[in-house]
Amino acid sequence: MSSPAPNQHFASDNYAGICPEALKYIVEANGSGHEVAYGDDSWTQRVCDRLRDLFQTDCEVFFVFNGTAANSLALASLCQSYHSVICHELAHVETDECGGPEFFSNGSKLLVAQGGPENGKLTPDAIESVVMRRADIHYPKPKVVTLTQSTEVGTVYTVEEVRAIAAIAKRRHLRVHMDGARFANAVASLDVHPSEITWRAGVDVLCFGGTKNGLPVGEAVVFFDHTLAEDFAYRVKQAGQLASKMRFISAPWLGLLDNDVWLRNARHANAMARLLHERLRVIPGVRIMFEPQANAVFAELPLHVIEQLRARRWRFYTFIGAGGCRLMCAWDTRPETVEQIAADIAALCAA
Amino acid sequence: MSSPAPNQHFASDNYAGICPEALKYIVEANGSGHEVAYGDDSWTQRVCDRLRDLFQTDCEVFFVFNGTAANSLALASLCQSYHSVICHELAHVETDECGGPEFFSNGSKLLVAQGGPENGKLTPDAIESVVMRRADIHYPKPKVVTLTQSTEVGTVYTVEEVRAIAAIAKRRHLRVHMDGARFANAVASLDVHPSEITWRAGVDVLCFGGTKNGLPVGEAVVFFDHTLAEDFAYRVKQAGQLASKMRFISAPWLGLLDNDVWLRNARHANAMARLLHERLRVIPGVRIMFEPQANAVFAELPLHVIEQLRARRWRFYTFIGAGGCRLMCAWDTRPETVEQIAADIAALCAA
Amino acid sequence: MSSPAPNQHFASDNYAGICPEALKYIVEANGSGHEVAYGDDSWTQRVCDRLRDLFQTDCEVFFVFNGTAANSLALASLCQSYHSVICHELAHVETDECGGPEFFSNGSKLLVAQGGPENGKLTPDAIESVVMRRADIHYPKPKVVTLTQSTEVGTVYTVEEVRAIAAIAKRRHLRVHMDGARFANAVASLDVHPSEITWRAGVDVLCFGGTKNGLPVGEAVVFFDHTLAEDFAYRVKQAGQLASKMRFISAPWLGLLDNDVWLRNARHANAMARLLHERLRVIPGVRIMFEPQANAVFAELPLHVIEQLRARRWRFYTFIGAGGCRLMCAWDTRPETVEQIAADIAALCAA
Amino acid sequence: MSSPAPNQHFASDNYAGICPEALKYIVEANGSGHEVAYGDDSWTQRVCDRLRDLFQTDCEVFFVFNGTAANSLALASLCQSYHSVICHELAHVETDECGGPEFFSNGSKLLVAQGGPENGKLTPDAIESVVMRRADIHYPKPKVVTLTQSTEVGTVYTVEEVRAIAAIAKRRHLRVHMDGARFANAVASLDVHPSEITWRAGVDVLCFGGTKNGLPVGEAVVFFDHTLAEDFAYRVKQAGQLASKMRFISAPWLGLLDNDVWLRNARHANAMARLLHERLRVIPGVRIMFEPQANAVFAELPLHVIEQLRARRWRFYTFIGAGGCRLMCAWDTRPETVEQIAADIAALCAA
Repeated sequence: MSSPAPNQHFASDNYAGICPEALKYIVEANGSGHEVAYGDDSWTQRVCDRLRDLFQTDCEVFFVFNGTAANSLALASLCQSYHSVICHELAHVETDECGGPEFFSNGSKLLVAQGGPENGKLTPDAIESVVMRRADIHYPKPKVVTLTQSTEVGTVYTVEEVRAIAAIAKRRHLRVHMDGARFANAVASLDVHPSEITWRAGVDVLCFGGTKNGLPVGEAVVFFDHTLAEDFAYRVKQAGQLASKMRFISAPWLGLLDNDVWLRNARHANAMARLLHERLRVIPGVRIMFEPQANAVFAELPLHVIEQLRARRWRFYTFIGAGGCRLMCAWDTRPETVEQIAADIAALCAA
Repeated sequence: MSSPAPNQHFASDNYAGICPEALKYIVEANGSGHEVAYGDDSWTQRVCDRLRDLFQTDCEVFFVFNGTAANSLALASLCQSYHSVICHELAHVETDECGGPEFFSNGSKLLVAQGGPENGKLTPDAIESVVMRRADIHYPKPKVVTLTQSTEVGTVYTVEEVRAIAAIAKRRHLRVHMDGARFANAVASLDVHPSEITWRAGVDVLCFGGTKNGLPVGEAVVFFDHTLAEDFAYRVKQAGQLASKMRFISAPWLGLLDNDVWLRNARHANAMARLLHERLRVIPGVRIMFEPQANAVFAELPLHVIEQLRARRWRFYTFIGAGGCRLMCAWDTRPETVEQIAADIAALCAA
Repeated sequence: MSSPAPNQHFASDNYAGICPEALKYIVEANGSGHEVAYGDDSWTQRVCDRLRDLFQTDCEVFFVFNGTAANSLALASLCQSYHSVICHELAHVETDECGGPEFFSNGSKLLVAQGGPENGKLTPDAIESVVMRRADIHYPKPKVVTLTQSTEVGTVYTVEEVRAIAAIAKRRHLRVHMDGARFANAVASLDVHPSEITWRAGVDVLCFGGTKNGLPVGEAVVFFDHTLAEDFAYRVKQAGQLASKMRFISAPWLGLLDNDVWLRNARHANAMARLLHERLRVIPGVRIMFEPQANAVFAELPLHVIEQLRARRWRFYTFIGAGGCRLMCAWDTRPETVEQIAADIAALCAA
Repeated sequence: MSSPAPNQHFASDNYAGICPEALKYIVEANGSGHEVAYGDDSWTQRVCDRLRDLFQTDCEVFFVFNGTAANSLALASLCQSYHSVICHELAHVETDECGGPEFFSNGSKLLVAQGGPENGKLTPDAIESVVMRRADIHYPKPKVVTLTQSTEVGTVYTVEEVRAIAAIAKRRHLRVHMDGARFANAVASLDVHPSEITWRAGVDVLCFGGTKNGLPVGEAVVFFDHTLAEDFAYRVKQAGQLASKMRFISAPWLGLLDNDVWLRNARHANAMARLLHERLRVIPGVRIMFEPQANAVFAELPLHVIEQLRARRWRFYTFIGAGGCRLMCAWDTRPETVEQIAADIAALCAA
């Protein structure tokens, strides 16, 4: 009953490669001769304009290499070292960036709010409670609230939820940052215009992830408030995040933006997660942990099943203690890969 | 007498694109299905092994996104915030990284040594003089000397020169860092084995530049002393320099390493600089500023010539005050481009 | 039944002034004419030698201005920015230094261990559990465990407890830091030799608090391992913690060290806390929250009692939500002040 | 002809002790029972009000422990890590704070302007030339100009000079910081109202030195523009510069401010420098290096004279290479000490 070693996995959507539309633009950008370095090239200009069109506002756009840098630089631009950032306890900035936000900001503390454990989301009350906890100079003053959209547990903030958080943020003089490593999956899931879930809902800065959506490397930091972007180009340069041959970071975004490939990629990944969810939820011994609203399924599996899946060379992360598994779908996850792992799980649970 | 708008320039070797051998590996690495993220993939393993072979030693290799990050992270790993780094006054770390080294190290000061103005190189005496200047706790203690190879003015340190600097460094308990953004051009120029000009000469850490040699993005930090690399992977991660889809950063290096393409690319760029030098040095009104040993020619041109070259849409940097021009050749600079700009300069000087 | 406005309080032992023995040395150090600056004076030399005698080991001693600086600099010297520090959730470094440790270390994260809520102490198991939680480069690597002695809730680690923690620390390659803002109170409470509870028990660095023990300003950072103190003087200087007129920071320590005034001061403060505890524990409506082992009493009082105490101008901190009060005794707290507040509380509770 | 070992020196004005008026307030502040910590005490309030009176404006005042911290925190509040600070090549922030400004700001570069070598002062032209040197994101953007008043070579900026610098600063969008470690000496020398040489001349932030003027420890950071002081209290706290027993830092300032003791102290030190200058300038073999306008005399002495002065246990710094000596007078320097060293120098030069 052993299955062939898969060449697709569910560990992360960053296991996937470059989508063909993006790759095409790398090749194309390589064919145009010499180009001005550091972003003063025509490709980068085009992408920035396209992103302004996409968001229907005159936002400021910067490209950096990865998500840790995007989040850390954006947060550092919103607070000083003696300020603090309110985040969910499962936020990537808190759990998976090796102290990047603290490093880039020279010490800004992340204040963990006890958000909903059942859905990985911050709530206005949780934020309010962190803000009210202290008001003295012995504790770093909150200046930012950061949301992950879609969240680390595969759920999605609704427009109403983001609006409610932005309202409390505004009242408490906090800026709103959105970690959008999987922003595309959230937009695809909500089926809203990207402006609705960002600046129209009160988001100040979005880190728009490209890598997990099909790029080889690179994220866009999008400031909806121009004053917040002042001198940000210097910050990017100093922090080692300014690409000299920028066109190879920026041009592939055209592949995502043309014909809404970014949404098509996200919708596909989300659909694969729904398929996986359909298959898993009916398997006795499997417990779905969070409602799958984007491209991830979190499921508790029996420990021996996890072990044997790994023996069959499936790769995935275990999560929140024993038995919890994160199964992440990518833009290129094939239905047959989903069926294959679901069949393996069913068989192993039944054994 | 106007020339057609060029699609090649002499502003920087980072205006050039991706060399075909590197691009081939991006495509190839994209064809292998899902790969483990963050460098635990087989492509990255292969490249690291190949670099160990190249340097004939069991060095530790890390990939980061650009030269500012490579230099800053390497220097930060060699000193604490209250230490200092001795560099030439024209060193890229001092003049063109927007305070990156100070940022990554949280304050390490760069101490500018008055190296040879005629060749852009540090000397043992210049280093000694900086070290001896102060020995009290009110001034940051020197811990590193950094060399740029080839230098910012297109010259190259000989093996003897590096050895002499490493000797004084060792005596003064300084580590030796080499900024090798154009390391390939230096090795090609010297025609030595890469180990000869690095660890065998006393270099502790090399930042081996890939971008200017034909990659889209990415530099290798090579530690020849394992103890210096301790926990460096954490440093890279925290600083936002760890690529999730690492194979697209690492695999293209195989294109450079196969059949010594990196040397071929460098030799070509160097040859183009020699050709340009041949043409320029005989033009009345042109003064060659530094001996062109790598891929750059520095020449003083009359101001009206500079102006008119720009009107003809040639791009290049002016340097060290009025009249000094940096003309940089890349792996893909065509002889006809060299002839074209040389003819333009000759004509403009004669006019 | 209103009491006169007190000129003593129970808010903090740093409300107290300078003890006469310390003040005497300020005056005396001022009478000796000019002195060499920055610690190269004879007073500072004497104090360092006396501290080496006190600890019966050749430790390295540095004086800094306050506790935040002492802890932050000591921790920064034990870890890099991508490392982490394990502390109790109530640790001063976590709750009351405004991100100082993260600032001085350029980003080292504090990892909060779920220590005993009933006594404010870390345990080997809690430390082990933090260490084991993660072992990947996406999370900062633990390098230090920090203990507060006496703790933030007025309890004291026994020699056995410190030894057990140091043992697990050693096994996990962690250094042991002791925040000894109230080290004197702990030593007085335990009635052990200061070496027993520090280096002989496995502590690497002690921040020995002077301010709360009767000095105007200044703490001593004591490194029991010489190699850890390498270049620490530079760190102190760069961080703005090197006093030019150092003798006025160091000489007052002689007042504490002569005739064991530091222990006498601590014993007195501890005795006042015991007296307060005796009085409070028998008052109906008062609940003692932690066993008072040093110079603090934590007691839950009815909210109207707290309010009326404040109306009578008693100052003290409320702690851990509604009703919890911290009542801290100092080296100069008078028995009649204790009796006065106890009487007020008893009367208010009875009302 | 040997002289007795002096108990006064000319190495630095920080060799001197506490002036009696300041000491009196330490004793007095110690007699008032418990006081609220961290600056919320009545002594600190009084001093802040007195400083506002002194400067005839509603400035914001913060007390920190020493000059490195005062300068570094003030500069960090005026710029981000990717900005830069223009200073004279002899500025204390550049030469004697061990990278403190870079540390506190997380990397802001100091840009050294080639100010007048003959008087240690910045000029508008020198500042302009640094500002104009670069305007690209590869070099940190200038945001502050810092002046030392009186300068490191004992000269004093006139009101006109400060105004001219502030004018160019305003035009270039730079803030003006004044390192006033010896501000009192400058005011005494200029005989102007302190407001004339600070905010009325365009200074944004003054670090007003107390230590060299007769305090044991402590400097005041004075913001003339309220908006610049926003959240500065948090910055002070995080950086380990907030005294818990603040009254012992602040109250001694009352001793300086009552009856203009600060000016009396400064005038005395200045007078001693003038006396020393009178004596030295007529000694054959002695060359005065800078015009002594404050409390320092810089003189070139024959090397054997320097050596023999040291053998006679005189302490002073040698400066700018061989033969240059800095002879600094303090608030307590006695005329007979001046006469004694002058006589020693005369005798040694004649020998």
